[in-house]
Amino acid sequence: MTKIAILGFGVVGSGVLEILTKNQNSINKKTNCDVEVKKILDIRDFSDHEYAHLFTDNYDEILNDDEIKVIAEVIGGVEPSYTFTKKALEKGKSVVSSNKELVALHGAELMDIAEKNGAHYMFEASVGGGIPVLRPLGLCLAANDVYEICGILNGTTNYILNKMFVENVAFDEALKSAQKKGYAERNPSADVDGIDACRKISILMSIAYGKQLDCSKIFTEGIRNITIDDVSVIEEMNCVVKLLGYGKICDDKVFARVSPVIIPKDHVLANVRGVYNGVMVTGSETEEVTFIGRGAGKLPTASAVVADILDIVKNDKHNYTWTHSDNTDFMIDINDTDSKFFVRVNNISDDIINDIIGDVSFCKCNDSDYKAFVTKEINEAVFSEMKSSLIKAGAEILSVIRVIY
Amino acid sequence: MTKIAILGFGVVGSGVLEILTKNQNSINKKTNCDVEVKKILDIRDFSDHEYAHLFTDNYDEILNDDEIKVIAEVIGGVEPSYTFTKKALEKGKSVVSSNKELVALHGAELMDIAEKNGAHYMFEASVGGGIPVLRPLGLCLAANDVYEICGILNGTTNYILNKMFVENVAFDEALKSAQKKGYAERNPSADVDGIDACRKISILMSIAYGKQLDCSKIFTEGIRNITIDDVSVIEEMNCVVKLLGYGKICDDKVFARVSPVIIPKDHVLANVRGVYNGVMVTGSETEEVTFIGRGAGKLPTASAVVADILDIVKNDKHNYTWTHSDNTDFMIDINDTDSKFFVRVNNISDDIINDIIGDVSFCKCNDSDYKAFVTKEINEAVFSEMKSSLIKAGAEILSVIRVIY
Repeated sequence: MTKIAILGFGVVGSGVLEILTKNQNSINKKTNCDVEVKKILDIRDFSDHEYAHLFTDNYDEILNDDEIKVIAEVIGGVEPSYTFTKKALEKGKSVVSSNKELVALHGAELMDIAEKNGAHYMFEASVGGGIPVLRPLGLCLAANDVYEICGILNGTTNYILNKMFVENVAFDEALKSAQKKGYAERNPSADVDGIDACRKISILMSIAYGKQLDCSKIFTEGIRNITIDDVSVIEEMNCVVKLLGYGKICDDKVFARVSPVIIPKDHVLANVRGVYNGVMVTGSETEEVTFIGRGAGKLPTASAVVADILDIVKNDKHNYTWTHSDNTDFMIDINDTDSKFFVRVNNISDDIINDIIGDVSFCKCNDSDYKAFVTKEINEAVFSEMKSSLIKAGAEILSVIRVIY
Repeated sequence: MTKIAILGFGVVGSGVLEILTKNQNSINKKTNCDVEVKKILDIRDFSDHEYAHLFTDNYDEILNDDEIKVIAEVIGGVEPSYTFTKKALEKGKSVVSSNKELVALHGAELMDIAEKNGAHYMFEASVGGGIPVLRPLGLCLAANDVYEICGILNGTTNYILNKMFVENVAFDEALKSAQKKGYAERNPSADVDGIDACRKISILMSIAYGKQLDCSKIFTEGIRNITIDDVSVIEEMNCVVKLLGYGKICDDKVFARVSPVIIPKDHVLANVRGVYNGVMVTGSETEEVTFIGRGAGKLPTASAVVADILDIVKNDKHNYTWTHSDNTDFMIDINDTDSKFFVRVNNISDDIINDIIGDVSFCKCNDSDYKAFVTKEINEAVFSEMKSSLIKAGAEILSVIRVIY
């Protein structure tokens, strides 16, 4: 019997308790693991809860309980999660986490402390919720050099974009619907501005590359600027917009970005709808492998937390670790990469566009006063200059969205 | 340094050698595993091969080499693979395999021998080629009760069906194209009659259920009877046909079948095209999780074989095991299940169809002399009787295909 503690009894924490109690028998049968929740840390009052006797608001009770071998940190945010996790690992207790913010910021350090103290720090639930993706990436694809990762890593923005395309509603209305359904926070910035997706692509690429990426150096653009007019032109192109975390490894360097991207409707990620997530990994041997599932939610996320707990109880050795480096020169700047761009503009002739941008494909814009075109692959810095030239030539730039097809 | 042997130097075997030599450094860096191929068993002459010194046609040389700890069995077929595998496991050597036929037939016994001798028997490559699916199913989803598995498990038939739908060609022509491209054997029966998919759904459901399913009791129907006329009606329904391995667990019993199935075009498996495979697992907590990738091919399959080797070298403990039982009463007969059916018929009135089958939805059949309809969910045995009644009433039944939507 392994005793564990849960830190934070919110959505995921209550899911972990629920799964470990209701599936106790089947888990035991399948894995030979017997896991019992001994303590739950939460400062709120749960004295009426069925498991009221498990609750404490004093972390030291958990830290100093030698029976507790594994701690599930599902508080979220950097503090007090960081301090709690460090203290536990230093005591040789393993920690499993759904906390992408903490992992993206301090993952390397925490894995290092874990290793030095004979403990584990695992975080399958931090990316892709219930989708097994970190373990397959780190273990099953170990024979591969990973070239590229491309994923819908945030369910809230996927829901919003999907709604904009299917129901032809504006961003604000789609956001309100997401908030109403509980998919988006009242302050939706972490989702709609791409911050959450940035943490997740950072974790994925850190595993693939072996060194911790610095999130502040990952170009991150959200979906607030996508308009109904964009949707109508992009629909005509038989494409959709997805907020994609994208990363690639080039020789010894690594690049990552988060941005809305136009992809064709028959792209495997185009059919990842609603709050689902999808991650496509391109390996040297497997080519593309795609993982699709619920990227969030109580039980899917808790299911990934519990899988980590079970792995630790079985004492599997895991090695999807990366190291920290103060010098992040290995990260490629977006200005040193190429992209194709969809541009919607006003007040400018086709000839001037061709003069400034070179050869472009104009898009069908039904009865509209604006025009839209897709460029060839252009260096990002060069494209920025072209944009300035368009503006100098009198153009009003209505939108710029990257394109993959 | 761990020394291994490869049994069979065909497509997959040569891929294993290629990956272990060309990716040696990156594998070592990522996993701390140093793996060297010491012997390759093949009866053919490879005296001109770059690695000619590794080849032997005498299995005892490998079996009696105490330095060789892991054997990759990539011969395929039941014999001599079965005898070779058994002998190796009995000597405490671990075996990894891409051999779905052997695993589906003798998996339980071989895992049992492995355990008794402190060895491992692993076979990630036997299902879904390069897609990590067995390990995620057995490990990452351990916190879940698996309810249902549904998958495109055979790339050859997926290529053929895809070609029939996209290019509107008949089965025979699509098959010839698959043979020309090397996707289908000259005798294509194992693929087009569903035998290969049957072995794979059997392996998946054996992991999910914990007991070895008997392939001979799995209802298996191939794709030979799908016609151009079916395609044209089903296109009008905005659907496609996929050969699906399907399994579900109901209470204490398990059901599996292989058959062509009509699914809507926006189903996540509808967009798994060409020779790709896709497996959708429905868990109690995660809901649907889908894995998509190359289901066959030299390097994808070899990549999964190598991942198993690396896991064994790192001595991870795996538990996607199942037991054997002579009594297979736990398997639900197809006649005790319900399905929706697409039926194409001739020489019968709508009224008689309604009389015999009850309420059905008629499909749009452009300028055709046949008619087509989709039934409600009907017990399979009852539907067989209805079919007989249709025939007795003078109908010519042109096709029957199961439907999921």
